[in-house]
Amino acid sequence: MREHFDEQLEEIRANLVELCAMTEAAIDSASRAVLDTDLPAADRAAELSANVDVRARELDHRALTLIARQQPVALDLRALIGGMHNIADLQRMGSLAAHIAEVARLHHPEPVVPHELRGIIADMGAAATAQAAAAQEILSTRNEVAALDLIWADERTDELLRKLFAATKSDDWLHGAASAVNITLLGRFYERFCDHTVEIGRRVIFVVTGEFPDQ
Amino acid sequence: MREHFDEQLEEIRANLVELCAMTEAAIDSASRAVLDTDLPAADRAAELSANVDVRARELDHRALTLIARQQPVALDLRALIGGMHNIADLQRMGSLAAHIAEVARLHHPEPVVPHELRGIIADMGAAATAQAAAAQEILSTRNEVAALDLIWADERTDELLRKLFAATKSDDWLHGAASAVNITLLGRFYERFCDHTVEIGRRVIFVVTGEFPDQ
Repeated sequence: MREHFDEQLEEIRANLVELCAMTEAAIDSASRAVLDTDLPAADRAAELSANVDVRARELDHRALTLIARQQPVALDLRALIGGMHNIADLQRMGSLAAHIAEVARLHHPEPVVPHELRGIIADMGAAATAQAAAAQEILSTRNEVAALDLIWADERTDELLRKLFAATKSDDWLHGAASAVNITLLGRFYERFCDHTVEIGRRVIFVVTGEFPDQ
Repeated sequence: MREHFDEQLEEIRANLVELCAMTEAAIDSASRAVLDTDLPAADRAAELSANVDVRARELDHRALTLIARQQPVALDLRALIGGMHNIADLQRMGSLAAHIAEVARLHHPEPVVPHELRGIIADMGAAATAQAAAAQEILSTRNEVAALDLIWADERTDELLRKLFAATKSDDWLHGAASAVNITLLGRFYERFCDHTVEIGRRVIFVVTGEFPDQ
């Protein structure tokens, strides 16, 4: 029974890592859609997000059933409940990638990002992809140090977001209100995506230690 | 033992209802901060949000401990795990109310909302307050019909958001990019706040029936 339980727990963990890889692919496609006005990439992000959603619901159900049937305690219980919270974060990350792609689609074939902000948006995209990759590693290894790195790395995204908002609000902004709105939404979607990876990092630390790290 | 468990479960439920009341007060204060350039209301929203955060963490810990010690099954387990997810939603609702208040604070004493959008923002604020009040009732009564009403009522917020975005993106927009950014953020914060109340509604249905409603 115990052996079977461990197997199921391991399987759930492996599924979480896969879900996280899907959100990484989704945010990467979404960034391409936005930066290269690439419509197939937008479709791909939407498709991945829909798949994350379906698989997340299934996995959530499986974790709940396992808790109910096997009555785990301590680390196992934290892993399962933490896992269910992680599923919710990954689901949200998928939706945010789809939102980013949708901004690109709505304006296709016009580019959404003004030339002088391409650098910041590309950096936000790269940061989000890197954070998703780091979350994946952490879900797989439960390495606390890597989790702390992920949490700290998020400051970079906040800094990029500040730059982005400052640009849209500056008197030099030449692209009009509609473009400022798009940029604001994109910035916010990327920031929230990264916030969810931080939550995953914090939660992995909780699963391992039983305590949440200070923020 | 069972009696004691029921008491603790009831206490957690009562605490969830209280947390939800705090988020309702927070979003109400935030709306006043935004619409009436009311700085004490902005402070109040921030303070309530911080309190929600502290109490949410405490309650989350209590629910987890109860699951670990008492090994509940079926409805009790769903109530506790659903409760933990609800805590996360309420925490986020508190943060979003604080974000809204912060937009008002950053621009104080200038008003953030252009005159012709006051109606839409006031309606979004009223909708968010009503959704939080409905969530509270549902957490308290677990009434499925009320939960479905809450889920459906959210369409109103989506419609308001569409109007808001259309206004900022229209050629008639006269308030510049910075103002469009603020309005976009406010709209999005209200929308997300309401989305979390919908999640609570869906989850209460899950706790009662064991199934999530179709969306």
